[in-house]
Amino acid sequence: MSVYQYGKFLLFGDSITQYSSKQIIEPDNGQIHFSIAAALANDYQRKLEVITRGFDGYNSEQALHMLPEILKFEHDTKPVEEQIKIAWIFFGTNDSSVGGTHIQHVPIGRYAENMETLIRMLQSRGIKVIAIKPGTHDETLADEAKQRERAKRSNQLQKQYGDVLGEVCGKLGVPSVDLYDVFINSGLSSADLLSDGIHFTGTAYQLMYNELMKVISANYPDLHPDNIPLKLPPWREATLDKLKAYRSN
Amino acid sequence: MSVYQYGKFLLFGDSITQYSSKQIIEPDNGQIHFSIAAALANDYQRKLEVITRGFDGYNSEQALHMLPEILKFEHDTKPVEEQIKIAWIFFGTNDSSVGGTHIQHVPIGRYAENMETLIRMLQSRGIKVIAIKPGTHDETLADEAKQRERAKRSNQLQKQYGDVLGEVCGKLGVPSVDLYDVFINSGLSSADLLSDGIHFTGTAYQLMYNELMKVISANYPDLHPDNIPLKLPPWREATLDKLKAYRSN
Repeated sequence: MSVYQYGKFLLFGDSITQYSSKQIIEPDNGQIHFSIAAALANDYQRKLEVITRGFDGYNSEQALHMLPEILKFEHDTKPVEEQIKIAWIFFGTNDSSVGGTHIQHVPIGRYAENMETLIRMLQSRGIKVIAIKPGTHDETLADEAKQRERAKRSNQLQKQYGDVLGEVCGKLGVPSVDLYDVFINSGLSSADLLSDGIHFTGTAYQLMYNELMKVISANYPDLHPDNIPLKLPPWREATLDKLKAYRSN
Repeated sequence: MSVYQYGKFLLFGDSITQYSSKQIIEPDNGQIHFSIAAALANDYQRKLEVITRGFDGYNSEQALHMLPEILKFEHDTKPVEEQIKIAWIFFGTNDSSVGGTHIQHVPIGRYAENMETLIRMLQSRGIKVIAIKPGTHDETLADEAKQRERAKRSNQLQKQYGDVLGEVCGKLGVPSVDLYDVFINSGLSSADLLSDGIHFTGTAYQLMYNELMKVISANYPDLHPDNIPLKLPPWREATLDKLKAYRSN
């Protein structure tokens, strides 16, 4: 075991995960938005590697074929010290769409089965899992072109898919981030939270981050950044002799 | 070779690299600052993994003991597809300090030697290197406690160390980001660029990012994010058959 080996925090999901490093949402105004992946990378700096596997438009059915491969390369073929320690799994926003292009929609019972299978794949490897339930939806925020292009979604459906995921989590003993409730309870408007009715503003990602850190603290305190020691000594103590002692050959 | 394997973009340096994901610089005002690591992670999403190895207060002398270990675990022991393709190396801000605690200061000739050794370690593995020259300095921005605690630095010294690094880069055929010139030519004040006289504001990181992307475009166009294909198909084309075909067993 070397101090130069990093365990991993996997972020696995759809577009909302893919865009978790995006700071500039509207290119024309240049406003800097909060990035949840950057916040985690900053918290876990010199502690864990945060790796993002987010795939725009994908659902839990596609994820069934992806997660074994992600785990193969980021976990199974790696030394224990470089394996995934903690992961969020975040599907449901696309699964809960209806009509439109069939590939995005997954019936609610099948979604529950898929999420159970995916979570078990992580659990069987000793990875600490946090399930993220879908947030809220607001179709009035999409412009006409986007509305035409998109499969139909609704706030009500996202809530139902979140509820069924909550049941799976209860069965498997996995904590979840109740994003729907967090968004509703924030008292903020859809326009504050959603850039186009589906995707998150920095404000929404910040609410998600706050809740995620609470869930980590309550359920996996040993993996909270405050409880993981910093890799390598503070510079004043990082004498060349000490650094030599960390060298593996 | 699998589409699920990620090559890497290594960010290697001191505190300015360590803080490259930091969005909230002053905890009391909560203002969101631009993160260069997040910007790169967003650009290279589904293309390359951006990994940050920044160590607060460290210098090029300490880096000599660290880089072989970082390369061992992130490159040498990894399959070709998961190795480091491109790296920034950014030391000099601490090396150019004088007086104070000796460990931070590295004489300018020795700094040049160290940087040459470090860059050759990367080059010998076929990693594309970008050297970052130190930015500007402004000791008047540090509060009294920080001034007392810190080794003495100066704008003039940071410029000199940058110049000598430029000579090393010329000799080795490595492009550099001339951060000192970028900061001076921006016409912005020290207070706009430096949070405490040494560390960068989001504005400074954004200037650094813009210049870095220009350097990548001009020198390593095949590693510019625009020229790297997205991993896995767009969701409409990601049929289960296609995803099955990507599975390695």
